[in-house]
Amino acid sequence: MKFAGSHILSVSQFDREAIERVFSIANQMLPYAKRQKRTNVLEGAILGNLFFEPSTRTRVSFGSAFNLLGGDVRETTGMSNSALAKGESLYDTARVLSGYSDIIAMRHPASGSVAEFAEGSRVPVINGGDGANEHPTQALLDLYTIEKELTFHGSHIDGMHIAMIGDLKYGRTVHSLSKLLCLFKNIRFTLISPRELAMPQAVIDAIENAGHRYTITDQLEGHLDADICYQTRIQEERFPSQQEANLFRGKFRLNQDIYTKHFQSKTVIMHPLPRDSRAEANELDNDLNLNPNLAIFRQTDNGVLVRMALFALTLGVQDIIHKFDHPVHWHVRP
Amino acid sequence: MKFAGSHILSVSQFDREAIERVFSIANQMLPYAKRQKRTNVLEGAILGNLFFEPSTRTRVSFGSAFNLLGGDVRETTGMSNSALAKGESLYDTARVLSGYSDIIAMRHPASGSVAEFAEGSRVPVINGGDGANEHPTQALLDLYTIEKELTFHGSHIDGMHIAMIGDLKYGRTVHSLSKLLCLFKNIRFTLISPRELAMPQAVIDAIENAGHRYTITDQLEGHLDADICYQTRIQEERFPSQQEANLFRGKFRLNQDIYTKHFQSKTVIMHPLPRDSRAEANELDNDLNLNPNLAIFRQTDNGVLVRMALFALTLGVQDIIHKFDHPVHWHVRP
Amino acid sequence: MKFAGSHILSVSQFDREAIERVFSIANQMLPYAKRQKRTNVLEGAILGNLFFEPSTRTRVSFGSAFNLLGGDVRETTGMSNSALAKGESLYDTARVLSGYSDIIAMRHPASGSVAEFAEGSRVPVINGGDGANEHPTQALLDLYTIEKELTFHGSHIDGMHIAMIGDLKYGRTVHSLSKLLCLFKNIRFTLISPRELAMPQAVIDAIENAGHRYTITDQLEGHLDADICYQTRIQEERFPSQQEANLFRGKFRLNQDIYTKHFQSKTVIMHPLPRDSRAEANELDNDLNLNPNLAIFRQTDNGVLVRMALFALTLGVQDIIHKFDHPVHWHVRP
Repeated sequence: MKFAGSHILSVSQFDREAIERVFSIANQMLPYAKRQKRTNVLEGAILGNLFFEPSTRTRVSFGSAFNLLGGDVRETTGMSNSALAKGESLYDTARVLSGYSDIIAMRHPASGSVAEFAEGSRVPVINGGDGANEHPTQALLDLYTIEKELTFHGSHIDGMHIAMIGDLKYGRTVHSLSKLLCLFKNIRFTLISPRELAMPQAVIDAIENAGHRYTITDQLEGHLDADICYQTRIQEERFPSQQEANLFRGKFRLNQDIYTKHFQSKTVIMHPLPRDSRAEANELDNDLNLNPNLAIFRQTDNGVLVRMALFALTLGVQDIIHKFDHPVHWHVRP
Repeated sequence: MKFAGSHILSVSQFDREAIERVFSIANQMLPYAKRQKRTNVLEGAILGNLFFEPSTRTRVSFGSAFNLLGGDVRETTGMSNSALAKGESLYDTARVLSGYSDIIAMRHPASGSVAEFAEGSRVPVINGGDGANEHPTQALLDLYTIEKELTFHGSHIDGMHIAMIGDLKYGRTVHSLSKLLCLFKNIRFTLISPRELAMPQAVIDAIENAGHRYTITDQLEGHLDADICYQTRIQEERFPSQQEANLFRGKFRLNQDIYTKHFQSKTVIMHPLPRDSRAEANELDNDLNLNPNLAIFRQTDNGVLVRMALFALTLGVQDIIHKFDHPVHWHVRP
Repeated sequence: MKFAGSHILSVSQFDREAIERVFSIANQMLPYAKRQKRTNVLEGAILGNLFFEPSTRTRVSFGSAFNLLGGDVRETTGMSNSALAKGESLYDTARVLSGYSDIIAMRHPASGSVAEFAEGSRVPVINGGDGANEHPTQALLDLYTIEKELTFHGSHIDGMHIAMIGDLKYGRTVHSLSKLLCLFKNIRFTLISPRELAMPQAVIDAIENAGHRYTITDQLEGHLDADICYQTRIQEERFPSQQEANLFRGKFRLNQDIYTKHFQSKTVIMHPLPRDSRAEANELDNDLNLNPNLAIFRQTDNGVLVRMALFALTLGVQDIIHKFDHPVHWHVRP
């Protein structure tokens, strides 16, 4: 896969070598993200951070990643006042806005919109989420987190056991992550969800075609020797009635007691965030905050590293970043 | 015309010498806009990008232009939460906000508001559009585009023939452009619009006083040896009824067939954008995208150059920009 | 008080020494704010400017202050689309967003929210206003303005006489300012408000415990030898009926005639802004704009200096700023 000048639209663009390239560059970003040093390799470059569908954390993550490489950020949030609302085609919008920046990160509520935009864009476009379709940087940061966490435990993605829990039907992140995992070997999936919210057959087929093993269940039962527990939110609002939704409530909530009962002491807990911490949802209890294997905030931190890596690769500066290093002079948390 | 420290509020501030000064500096901005090199002449300067009326592309164009000169941008969009909504005068707002930046670009829905704001501002203010009144940077980028396109065809603004088509009554851009063209010599205007949407008499008078020739018609008929075809949107929503609006529908739409029939093969097509590409509007068909004389995206690209030039002149750095040149290290589209 | 790495949440954190430290650094910021020179000491640092409650001027003031130290700004405005609206706890939001920046300035409508957020944050948080609770940077810039204005008149905070006028019950700024003034000596307060809008007893007690003198009145009567006249807005909307509000209308409006009648020719006029300049409000008449003692715009300018000082101290760069000095090349107002 050639990165320089390319769009990043879908996880299906990536082969294993490309993923390893991204992760290798992401690793090199750590000292910058930790403010041990700074780089201004992209000084003068402009990111067009176009969030036609608002998303504070993804938007700020992209923007901060670009700032950490020395670049500037111009951005827009929402769509109500944009030319798109006046009947302008995505092609036109792309032709115009791509004249204002060196690279674009874009989120839009419509499935396929980012790819359509990319056809009109004269600069690389990174998909920051296009509705129910794709959110490739989330999938990459999830996989990157898995690799780092497993490495810490002396383990590997090849051969691992991952439990995916909750709403596997509508959860975009588990679909994309599963597709990426099909590039690896000998993985065991335990897919735990209400039958009504089971993993789509197309994803199951991909898992099977990749030679992986999987178990489908609607109960969190017995002891699971999972390396990763990937928890998602039950999308209660999608059920025909709240009564039916209530049938599943609490079943797939995770707290320290449930964790101890069903998982290994080293099982890594992940979640795409935000977690709904209201009492009636609470899919990941706050008592897990003290569990050292709760990796949810390491996930978002890793998101900055992965996005820095994608910017560096797409703009072709991945090998010269260190030439623009400078010391950091301000107080940084120890 | 003295630029350094001055406000840019209206096209009527400009004489021909001032326009040529802006265009000369805009030409020098091209290598920076094309990322052949970068400058940080304005490093440390702050643009207050105050869009009390939202406009994504104009806002981002101003912001990117300032970034390309090395400056930072602080901005605000919309008015609902601003102090203006709490009864603060524009004078007070200007006094306060002008303490936060070195120069201000401002859009506001009320006619005359930007000039009123400028009276309270302690830094130069550039009008980014004040309702039905003025949008001088659009008029300048339109004129700059005409000059560049005509130069490419070995022609000149003096002596040219421009056809203006569509809603000439409400289209702010054709009024301002016509005023600027009154600074030039021996121009021929063909003004094509429904009678109900004819060019206002005041603009006609100005054209006549400048010694230009003009034809007024409500039909796109015969062969026009126009150098420029400036198309605007029929503001259908302004008609008493959709039935009456429908009378004009399609008449002033432009597509490749209509272009071939009525124009020269070198006639340049312009439009202030966004063009409404929905089937029921479609004033500029997508089949023109392959026409090399479709200049609409060169217009928006030129907007960055013109705004860079205005920033440079207003902040008095136009002659020292190259002293702060640096090479560009990242991948740029060929 | 240790600044480096600390949160700035409340005026109660400050002792007199800390205040003098802030003001001393704020004084050193003046040449940068006046663009006599620039610094890039914070080049590469990122401010997370999180305005979950919108406030254009406070947000832009923080952002510009950070830019003036050479840093970048990532920001968010409003809350409707944030994860907070999806049930995420402030702790989670803080854990995530603090991974994207080096320091955070935050405004939020809920009292206590910023302190709660700070518990989850891994970087210093500066309170930019948390509902009815605190707005410490406003109190500091008010006090800083008082010191500068009195120094100009050859006077001091210790021993001064301050008149506070208007809505002393709901006006957050007069409460915080009064608390800070309790760190000084021998101050005289004249508290002028409708009885229904009197200064809360807790603030009166603090003033008394600090050994200050005070007079409470509901009339602006006789000649006041006040050094400072701190005017606030009558929050008419809080009255049971407009009729009752009307009873107080005009009583506490200030214009040049009223000023001449009741104050010394050197009395400094302050106001937290925005002032409502609509005829029916008009608590500070525009005819005072010519009065050289109208300090309201010097207050907002001072806000930039104070915020720069707080950023410098919190990030521990206050003693090395001048090492990163550069000349300014652009046109600056004389």
